[in-house]
Amino acid sequence: MRFQVYDTTLRDGAQREGLTYSVVDKLAVARLLDEFGVGFIEGGWPGAVPKDTEFFQRARKELDLRHAVLVAFGATRRAGLAVTEDPQVRALLDAETPAVALVAKADLRHVERALRTTAGENLAMIHDTVAHLVAEGRRVFVDGEHFFDGYRHDPAYGAAVVETALAAGAEVMVLCDTNGGMLPSQVATAIADLTERLGVAPERLGIHCQNDTACAVANTIAAVEAGVRHVQGTANGYGERPGNADIFAVVANLQLKLGLPVLPDGCLEQMVRVSHAIAEIANIAPDTHQAYVGAAAFAHKAGLHASAIKVDPLLYNHVDPSVVGNDMRILVTEMAGRASVELKSRELGLDLAGHPDTLSRVTRRVKEMEAGGWSFEAADASFELLVRSELPEGAPARPFALESYRVLVEHREDGAVVSEATVKIRVRGERVIATAEGNGPVNALDEALRVGLARHYPELLGFELADYKVRILEGSHGTGAVTRVLVETAGGGRDWTTVGVHPNVVEASWHALVDALTYGLSRAKV
Amino acid sequence: MRFQVYDTTLRDGAQREGLTYSVVDKLAVARLLDEFGVGFIEGGWPGAVPKDTEFFQRARKELDLRHAVLVAFGATRRAGLAVTEDPQVRALLDAETPAVALVAKADLRHVERALRTTAGENLAMIHDTVAHLVAEGRRVFVDGEHFFDGYRHDPAYGAAVVETALAAGAEVMVLCDTNGGMLPSQVATAIADLTERLGVAPERLGIHCQNDTACAVANTIAAVEAGVRHVQGTANGYGERPGNADIFAVVANLQLKLGLPVLPDGCLEQMVRVSHAIAEIANIAPDTHQAYVGAAAFAHKAGLHASAIKVDPLLYNHVDPSVVGNDMRILVTEMAGRASVELKSRELGLDLAGHPDTLSRVTRRVKEMEAGGWSFEAADASFELLVRSELPEGAPARPFALESYRVLVEHREDGAVVSEATVKIRVRGERVIATAEGNGPVNALDEALRVGLARHYPELLGFELADYKVRILEGSHGTGAVTRVLVETAGGGRDWTTVGVHPNVVEASWHALVDALTYGLSRAKV
Repeated sequence: MRFQVYDTTLRDGAQREGLTYSVVDKLAVARLLDEFGVGFIEGGWPGAVPKDTEFFQRARKELDLRHAVLVAFGATRRAGLAVTEDPQVRALLDAETPAVALVAKADLRHVERALRTTAGENLAMIHDTVAHLVAEGRRVFVDGEHFFDGYRHDPAYGAAVVETALAAGAEVMVLCDTNGGMLPSQVATAIADLTERLGVAPERLGIHCQNDTACAVANTIAAVEAGVRHVQGTANGYGERPGNADIFAVVANLQLKLGLPVLPDGCLEQMVRVSHAIAEIANIAPDTHQAYVGAAAFAHKAGLHASAIKVDPLLYNHVDPSVVGNDMRILVTEMAGRASVELKSRELGLDLAGHPDTLSRVTRRVKEMEAGGWSFEAADASFELLVRSELPEGAPARPFALESYRVLVEHREDGAVVSEATVKIRVRGERVIATAEGNGPVNALDEALRVGLARHYPELLGFELADYKVRILEGSHGTGAVTRVLVETAGGGRDWTTVGVHPNVVEASWHALVDALTYGLSRAKV
Repeated sequence: MRFQVYDTTLRDGAQREGLTYSVVDKLAVARLLDEFGVGFIEGGWPGAVPKDTEFFQRARKELDLRHAVLVAFGATRRAGLAVTEDPQVRALLDAETPAVALVAKADLRHVERALRTTAGENLAMIHDTVAHLVAEGRRVFVDGEHFFDGYRHDPAYGAAVVETALAAGAEVMVLCDTNGGMLPSQVATAIADLTERLGVAPERLGIHCQNDTACAVANTIAAVEAGVRHVQGTANGYGERPGNADIFAVVANLQLKLGLPVLPDGCLEQMVRVSHAIAEIANIAPDTHQAYVGAAAFAHKAGLHASAIKVDPLLYNHVDPSVVGNDMRILVTEMAGRASVELKSRELGLDLAGHPDTLSRVTRRVKEMEAGGWSFEAADASFELLVRSELPEGAPARPFALESYRVLVEHREDGAVVSEATVKIRVRGERVIATAEGNGPVNALDEALRVGLARHYPELLGFELADYKVRILEGSHGTGAVTRVLVETAGGGRDWTTVGVHPNVVEASWHALVDALTYGLSRAKV
């Protein structure tokens, strides 16, 4: 069996406190995970979560995955109901994914106290649901919830769950440390005991760990060392409570420490980019100190050994940072290095390998801007405009020049809240003044700008503001902090993201809006 | 030998990028660590770092440690210099601590390339320095830098370093994974091999791990399982690159998972308080998702199983949160039902068990509001105001009535961006009009409101807007979407979070600001 890297960022990872993805976000995250080369993407729970049902519908049309198989997640049939009658199982089939993951109770105490059914009925539920889905042509994975706690309490029952799932046709039985309380040695011992008890090959087992003992990554590695060949994790370890096993650290450890080539060639070096882009989409500040991918993961306080590091960096780094797309930093500088700028430009179809001076200038500008709070991880369109501005042919021209704008928000005596914006701009030599209302200050500004430009640029009518995200940086200053805005615009069957940064949220939004229109109009001409 | 919990927050932990302690900070951290019950506090490098020299001077007079022994850190004598002539060794003695830790190179490549001396001279440096300090009455620990990488490269030399240090009188030889590249199985194998090769008892060894593979805690535990009885770590895992082993997770795992009573009685439940207090002093936002001590470490999205959790919380928690001073939290989310509203209210000190009608009304209102985009997951203060408004005594009165407000943002012709807000309110019968500027529309509005209220509510001067978060919901509508704002306010040694939702970001912020002031003033009166 090939090694299976199974990502559950979009399902279990979405349990993280405060995290919400839109359907568009989920599609974007799935594309990034596919670029990272995972084998499986668990997309959500169709039928139970309306947004997830919509995700699978749109994924069929819009997602063109190169590496990953899409997986719908659900539960075994309800107690006392025929599997063919269970609407939740029906919804799983309707998702039309090649593979399905089923959560099954593997701890008898949960069967009796939470599910309120019997040991036997739970096994029947597992058998019936797996067999039904296999008969319908699905690859089936079974997640044994609370497996490790249950196995400690009643190993015979835990083993019966595993045996039932595999006998019914499950491809892999995934052992879950749902409460996250295990240590690596305990995981290894339970797997050895289970495989001996059942005579089952550990290759038929998977591992899913939570980080409640701060050992989720190590527990996952311990399971692989015990023979398991299916690992589950989430991007950046997002998940409920302290989170899930961080799939980036898991994969990096498997490839670089155990020598298991679990990703397709060329994927490992996407790690930093994919990690940071998902953080942006999730609207969570990237963890500077995250293993492998953090901005400080290979940052050395320049001190006694600076020259020794320069002569022989591998004496001071546990791996070469570039293999995961990261950079070693000696001084306190910002994240972007030449390697990541070059990689990202290449991705956008701009090959800077032959333009070392341009590469240096872009890298320097990115560093300067990042020091001021800009981030291009998720703002490809703004990044492309920046790179092109340093190339001989230059960036596309701005469609207008700004004279001034003014935005007013009023909460009136009658309780009505109104927003109104006026822009004064020059378009192709003409001075234009335009005013519009909106349901918020940024919406009003966007509308006013479109009104002002519409006569000269009718293509704008095809653009739609698809998403708008705000992040306050340096939170300890409250509303006085710097604001970073990401704007996603859709038009002509594509979408693109731009970024703006300013202490004032309206001005930051303005920058992102102008980049969005400039980029969109330059594409519309191509 | 008694188990040794050895903290290096103030020395190795201070290597974290961006972290700086004053001497007063260091004294405060040392007191907290002592309250937590660690056996050893490594305070810094006297002689090399002036601030650390001062720390040890003041510590002698000002620190009255109940549990911990203070340790001064330094290096073995310089190559080619008699130990009695080495000013750095002299400074170690001058620190007048009962114990000293010496860093020694344990990887021959570092001896030759970084230290630029010979294998033999390095061993002589270790021997001379240990023997000298022991003769001066010090307990001596030796940190074998790069031990694990070095042992893989040249086990005979690594073993010679260990043997030399112990023979010269070191109490414990600490094996350091300085580059942080190890996995638990590799740590265990190296220790087993070393103890067999030397015939040394593993109780004479210590462990010091960095988190570059996200396995620092697990590696530390693996070493203890291999017989080691001295563990090093830092508060919250602070340290260079991805940091050190988090001493809180290490200690909790040792006590609660391996049953080793490594702390004095009554200390384990100080963990959350000490962790958060040290984060405060370090000026680093506490990691909500940190194992054991994070605010979300025992937070459950109350869905299907809220009633099961109420019956048997330990089925869903890997340990009882109260043993480390934490609490289980139920997140009031989309799927909130009566059970989770009741649990959450009880957490806030409002017992709804005897008020079934109130419970129903609150549950219904929460559901309605959540359908409109509100979220009380992270907004305990707004949730409390909501619950209290349904109780017989009612919610605390709003400190004012709004007539109207107006916010203006202008990007002027000269490029300046200005924000100005005016509020018209009634405060205790008086009509007040107040205007203020700010660096953004919300900041201006907050300022204007405070100006308007200041005369009647001087307590407001003690409140500070600590954090401000914006999330756009239903992203497919762009800036036309609903906006959710979270405001964190600090005052009187507490902080509280409030929420506001509206299509207009300014109005959403207004709701959250008003809730924040109302809640804060009601608490200030208590």
